[in-house]
Formats: sequence, C-alpha cells, structure tokens
Amino acid sequence: MAKEKKVEQITDMEVDFAQWYTDICRKAELVEYASVKGFTILRPYGYAIWENMQRIMDGMFKETGHENVAMPVLIPESLLKKEGELVNGFAPEVAWVTHGGSEKLEERLAFRPTSETMFCDFWSNNLQTYRELPMLYNQWCSVIRWEKTTRPFLRSREFWWQEGHTIHETAEEAQAETMQQLQCYADFFENVLAIPVVPGRKTDKEKFAGAEATYTVECMMKDRKALQGATSHYFGDKFSRAYNVTFTGRDNKLQYPFQTSWGSTTRMIGAVIMTHGDNNGLVLPPKIAPVQIIVLPIAQHKPGVLEGAAALEARLKQAGFRVKTDKSDNSMGWKCAQYEMKGVPVRVECGPRDLENGQCILVRRTDGEKIPCKLEDLEAEAAKQLEIVQQQMFDKAKKNLEENIYEAHSLEEAKQLQAEHGGFIKTMWCGDLACELKMKEEAGMSSRCMPLKQERLGDVCPICGKPAKTMIYWGIAY
Amino acid sequence: MAKEKKVEQITDMEVDFAQWYTDICRKAELVEYASVKGFTILRPYGYAIWENMQRIMDGMFKETGHENVAMPVLIPESLLKKEGELVNGFAPEVAWVTHGGSEKLEERLAFRPTSETMFCDFWSNNLQTYRELPMLYNQWCSVIRWEKTTRPFLRSREFWWQEGHTIHETAEEAQAETMQQLQCYADFFENVLAIPVVPGRKTDKEKFAGAEATYTVECMMKDRKALQGATSHYFGDKFSRAYNVTFTGRDNKLQYPFQTSWGSTTRMIGAVIMTHGDNNGLVLPPKIAPVQIIVLPIAQHKPGVLEGAAALEARLKQAGFRVKTDKSDNSMGWKCAQYEMKGVPVRVECGPRDLENGQCILVRRTDGEKIPCKLEDLEAEAAKQLEIVQQQMFDKAKKNLEENIYEAHSLEEAKQLQAEHGGFIKTMWCGDLACELKMKEEAGMSSRCMPLKQERLGDVCPICGKPAKTMIYWGIAY
Repeated sequence: MAKEKKVEQITDMEVDFAQWYTDICRKAELVEYASVKGFTILRPYGYAIWENMQRIMDGMFKETGHENVAMPVLIPESLLKKEGELVNGFAPEVAWVTHGGSEKLEERLAFRPTSETMFCDFWSNNLQTYRELPMLYNQWCSVIRWEKTTRPFLRSREFWWQEGHTIHETAEEAQAETMQQLQCYADFFENVLAIPVVPGRKTDKEKFAGAEATYTVECMMKDRKALQGATSHYFGDKFSRAYNVTFTGRDNKLQYPFQTSWGSTTRMIGAVIMTHGDNNGLVLPPKIAPVQIIVLPIAQHKPGVLEGAAALEARLKQAGFRVKTDKSDNSMGWKCAQYEMKGVPVRVECGPRDLENGQCILVRRTDGEKIPCKLEDLEAEAAKQLEIVQQQMFDKAKKNLEENIYEAHSLEEAKQLQAEHGGFIKTMWCGDLACELKMKEEAGMSSRCMPLKQERLGDVCPICGKPAKTMIYWGIAY
Repeated sequence: MAKEKKVEQITDMEVDFAQWYTDICRKAELVEYASVKGFTILRPYGYAIWENMQRIMDGMFKETGHENVAMPVLIPESLLKKEGELVNGFAPEVAWVTHGGSEKLEERLAFRPTSETMFCDFWSNNLQTYRELPMLYNQWCSVIRWEKTTRPFLRSREFWWQEGHTIHETAEEAQAETMQQLQCYADFFENVLAIPVVPGRKTDKEKFAGAEATYTVECMMKDRKALQGATSHYFGDKFSRAYNVTFTGRDNKLQYPFQTSWGSTTRMIGAVIMTHGDNNGLVLPPKIAPVQIIVLPIAQHKPGVLEGAAALEARLKQAGFRVKTDKSDNSMGWKCAQYEMKGVPVRVECGPRDLENGQCILVRRTDGEKIPCKLEDLEAEAAKQLEIVQQQMFDKAKKNLEENIYEAHSLEEAKQLQAEHGGFIKTMWCGDLACELKMKEEAGMSSRCMPLKQERLGDVCPICGKPAKTMIYWGIAY
C-alpha cells in the first residue's frame, strides 16, 4: 500500500516573505546551515542549479574569447593594501590567515574577498607588449566576506562566484568590454533565468570600491524589493598604476593598460527563488532546472506501468532532456507536492489507462495546466511545454517589474509611493551625494541605478530643486 | 617579412630532469609562481587542461550516481579535532584563520586540508534513515596544506582537486565503493591520460590519516621515479562514531554508516608532463589537450592560403575537434616549435601547393610522422591520427613501466637495483613497519603499494627473513 508521507508545508509568501524564502531554501533541499557561523552548505540540488548556471555562463564567456584561470586564494596584506579605495572598501570584511601549521606567518594573508589585486600582481610580472592585449580572464571560485547578518544565497560569509578580469590597450576597449559583459549578464538573466532586468550605472556611492564606473543589472523580486543581479566594472588605469602593470605600446613607450572586472554569484539562485517561487515552493526556469521533467507512474503496481514509464524516461533522456522517474512507493499526492516544491518545470503522468490509449499527461509547474499528449508526440510536446514554461515565467516576472515602477516628482511622493506599493521609484536626480543620502534617510531607499535607457521626467532634482543630470531608480534592496 | 622569433630552449631531461620539468611548466605557460610563497597560479593553458580532466571525471562520477555539493572552506578547530588520527596527520600543515574583519575569532578556523570532518558534520545533522543511503557526494575545490618545499603541480600550498565522500548502510557497500572509485581512477589514468598504473593498497604507514585502508594508482615517470596518481579510502565506521553520524536501520535501531573518500588533484598535470613530455616540450594526450589540432598555413601571404586554412579549421571544429589556426606572422619554424612545446597532438600544415592538389599534411606530435591527407578525408584522418597519438602515448608509457619493474630477494639486491635502474622494485614483505623503515633507510625507497595483482616471489620477507604476507612495490617517489 502507498505510504502516506506528508510534504511539509511552507509559510505563505503573503504572510511572511522572509520565512517563505527560508522555507523554500530548506524544504527544496537547496542549502543547509553549516556549523561555522554565517557559512552555508550547497546541497546536491542547490549545487546542480549552480552547475547549470555555470555551464551556460562559462560558454557565453568563452564565446567572447575569455579564458579561465586559477589565482591563489590568499593575498598578502601588503599586496591588498596597494590600492587604497579597494582595501578601505573590503578591509572590514576580510578573513585573515595568520598561522601556517604551527608557525606564525611574517605577514598575514587575506582570504580573497575579490581578486583584482592578484590579477594585477600576475600582470605586473607577465605582461610585456601590446601584442599580448587584451588579456581576458575569468575564474570560478569562492570568496569570503565577513558579513554580520547572513541569509542563504543572498548574504553569506562564503559564497561562490565567477570573477572576470581583463586588461586592454585602450580605455575605449576596456569600456566596450565593461558594457559587453553587462549585456552578457542581461542576456543571461532574461533568456536563461527568465528574470527581466534594468541595466544601468551605479552612483558613486554604490559603485565597487576602486572602480571608475560600476554597471548593474537590477531585478525586482515578488515582494517588490530590489536585488542587484550582477555587476560590471570599469577601472580605467587606476589599478595598473597602483600595481605597476605596464606594457610596451605601439609607440615603443611604456604604458598602463585599462582594466575591467565583472562578477556574478550564487546570489542568482536567491533571485530565481524570489522572482519565480510560489506558495507551493520553488519554480525553476527549464534552462537551469536540474530535473526538467519528472515522470510519475500512476497505479504503478499494475502490469506494464513501470515499464511504460521507463520507456518514456528513456525517450526523453535520449532527446536530451534532464529527466527522472519517481518509482518510490510514496503516494501520488505526495509526489506531486514534492516535485512542485522542488520546482520541476514539467511533470509527466502516465497510468495504465493512459498507456493503453497511447497517451500521457504533461502538467506545467507554472499554471498546473494539464496537456494530454499522444505518446508518439512526446519529445516534441515536452520541448514545447518547457519553452512555454520558460516564456510564462519571463512574462510574469516582466509584468511584476513593469507594473511596479512608479514615477515621483518630490521626495514626499517618492516616499509615499514606496510605502504604498514598494517597487522601483524613478525620479530625476542632480547627482549629489547629499540628495542620495536624504532619500535613504527619509524614504528608506537606496539608489538602484541610473538606467541605460534614460527618460526625461523633468528638469530638476525633486530632492534639492537643482538642475537634474539624470533619471534614476530608487528602491529597497536585498 | 616573417619575424624571426626564437622559441626558448628547455633543459634536456637527460641533463637535469627537475629543471626540464620546471622549464616545461613555465615555457608551455601552464603555471606561474605567485607572490605568495609556495602558491601557484594556473594560467589559461594549464587551467584548460584541468577543465578537460574535470569534465571527463565529473561525467564518470555522475554516471555512477555521485552528486556534487559545496561545503564551507573553513572548519572550526574543535570540529577538526574530533577524529584524533586525522588531525594528527594534518595539523602540522593547516593554515589558520584567526580574524574576521577587525575582530579576533573566538575559535580559530582551519582552511580545509580535506573535508571528511565537514561531510560528517553535515551527515550528523541530516541523515535519518537507511532509506536515504547511500549518499554519494563529491566536491571540486581547492585545499591548503602548508608544505615546506613546493614544486608546480606536484606539491603546492594550495592545490585544486576533487574529493568524493560517501556513506553506506553496510561495510560491504562502502568497500565496494572504495574499489569502484579506485577502478574509476585507473580507467581515467589509462584511457584518458594514457598513463598506465599499478593499482594497489597502501601500507599502514603510507595510508591516509584516519583511514582503515587506502588504495592507490601508482604511476612511473620518465625518470623512473614513482608518483601516487590518486587515492581511494575506506574508513569503516570510525568517523561516523567520532562525529556521531547515525541512521535508523532496517531493524529500527540506530546504526553508524560506513564511509569512503577518494581524491585526485592538479598533480595529475604533473604526472602527464613527466610521463609523456620530451626535450621539445609537453606532449598532451588528445583526450585532454586544450587544442587537439593546430592548423598552420604555409606561405600564408599567397592568395587563397588563409582562406583554405580557415575552411579546414571550420570543418574540424564542426566535426567536434578542439582546433585553432595560427595566422600570426611568426615564422613556420617558430610556430612548429611553439606548438610542440605546448604539446598539441596533431599539426595540420597547408600551403598553396597542398591546397591546389586538394591535400594537406598531418603531423603527429609523438613521432613527427607526416601523413598526407586528401582534403575530403580530413575529419576521418584527424580522428584516426588523434587515436593513434593517444595509443602511442599509452604504449610508450606502458613499456617504460613494464621495463622498469625489478624483482629483488634481498635488501642489498633491492638497493642495488634501485641505484642502477630506478623504477619499482618488487619484493615479498612480512608486513612489519620495521622492515618498511629499514628499506627506506638503507635503500632510500618508500613502499608504493601492495598491488591488487599479487605474485608469489618467495616465502620470506627479504628484509627480516620472517614469513612473507604479501608482495609489495618499492620506489623513490615524488
């Protein structure tokens, strides 16, 4: 007899969004807290999502000529301190290695919080001529930032990421690289994660420590809070000068190269949860789902059902889908709830009558729609339904984003709109830090970005009344 | 006019094997020393070799049901110390984090030297019932061991590796897993890296700290020294008991699971260099070569040559080969030497006359053999030549291994054989540590392994004269 195993309930997102988020992280078996305070464990299902993200991004990076490398994880303090802004930005969050074996080190070593310094050090020893430029490097690794409060995926003392680091002969080439990688992130978020983004530039206050310009893809979660998706930085020749990275130019003179870096992290898994999840659990975009299709045999004790299910699984696997079959003796109700919790995009149900009639049922995770499917059409129908799910997810998220951008013409209005609706509040801005700080203080919002797609909402900064320089988005961010 | 750029010479291996090795590491652009003492940088070409190794191994692990996870990199000292043998084995080599940001930590944290403790900690919190067993995990990461002397790939304070960790309901299942993963490594070495191995069991002296049994695949380098290729460990329930990992068994009672771990590292790149390299540089097995085929246009200024080369590259890429074309204005001599240095398995030469005659020339890295190839046969001929190269490499390495295993019946004979020939010296052995230590002291050899394929060479231990328990291989190891 089928065992009646209960799928544990999760908190409704309308009741407590933060708890709902944490529940999904745990119940979908993505992540586990470690014994080390502030550290997390990526469990197989969570890590498999990350692997799919990695594989696709890595392919995109390589398409545009980037190569992977591995730099040491420990950075001598003196090396880290060569660029003042960077170290000031990261020093409070650095974990320090002070002993190797039983000996105290002469100089303490930082666990990398980011690796600009190591790449610069490498280039300062290896770069010779403009013929070797550009150098387009990337690495996949973990970094440590000693955060005070942590949340799975969103803020963790150790997190996993890629960090791209490139140097170029000219400022223009480095700027073009910065924008190309921003666009790469925008493509990845929209076309792979099904998360629409607002690409834009960060204010000086919010930019990366030491960068000349930081660009971001900003996302909106289901609770209408903002999440910074990924960032791309232009450094000019600031680090080159600080780390004495030079090359012999076309004019036969020593020159400083121009530099970029760009990064994205396991935080993207948090973005996926909060963009697509619902009260039944995780909803995964088919392009990154570890299991795209789960086959559930109905009345599997009846003759031929398990064999029929196995045949469907084999065909779907053969066609290149990531597919599994659940032949356990748990009840059908439990299984459906379990794979909904895990966000599997499409479920295939096949019972004895279905198989007799030469059909099965496909069920979409997004809207529960049941699609009868003739067995001979299985592969084509599965491909079609996965595409529909991917598109539905993007459309829904896009609607959430677009319906929650509000225009304000005064600080008071901005504050009120945020309090009433949440979301992004767009205003003009004079560019002064004072106004940015005032918005934070009075309305609780940080600047999210100055979108690349600018609109003219007026002539003056609504905070100080001085002439406006740019249109800007504000929000409450993760 | 073609620039005459000189390929830097490397030391002959017959003159100074160690220098030859280091020269290849640097000149083939595999690795670079970092500013941090004892740490290395994996450059794009070296990392690309590692990526190919990773992709293939990862696929093999997944085929047998293993899943990847990510455990925290830092381990609390108290957690590390729960299993006495492990911590005694690794404590002298641990790097310690003592400060997070500006605060001194209450308890210092070890940069993982290996992660048995973290996996056990996870399981102690998460494992519940036998139904969840086995748990078959693996992770790709870097570890730190604070070695005193270091060499690229062979011994480095940070190195990159995979560590598999599994728990099982029964001892038999865990033992079977240990042997399965040993076999997996043997397959990978022989069929992918083209390195023949001697699979066997380590002595108690040489086994992994805390393991009940350690198995190894031992390789022989061109200088007839031994290199431990990869290891697979069986722990019994020792760690389960130390870390209180339990599950409810079929008998409804609490039980301790049985555990394994197995690992392989970037050291394998060192093994590839020293097994296959020659005085012209690196020789890479086609299965892991970042570039399998280099296309070199001859007299490329002549009309049609570059277009012809581009067409060949496109066809080879289309057929799934990793291929590049060198269209630089360096001389043909430089290019040939450069791609020999980098160990590219097959070179395709195409000049104006070749193309007119509808042919090109394939050149094997292994023996320099030139194979004329009709353009219409390009893909098939390339596949064939890559297979030949892979096989030639294995055969040559196998010959080196087999010709350098010597049988000894006395300590004196063993010592003399090693001094004269190097290689593996096989003897019988009583199993006592005293004899093992004596062999080290008198003949400078450590025990390599007790091969799975045992032979009976006699009845007594040649060192002490007591009854022999096993046949064993001795050697001088990296």
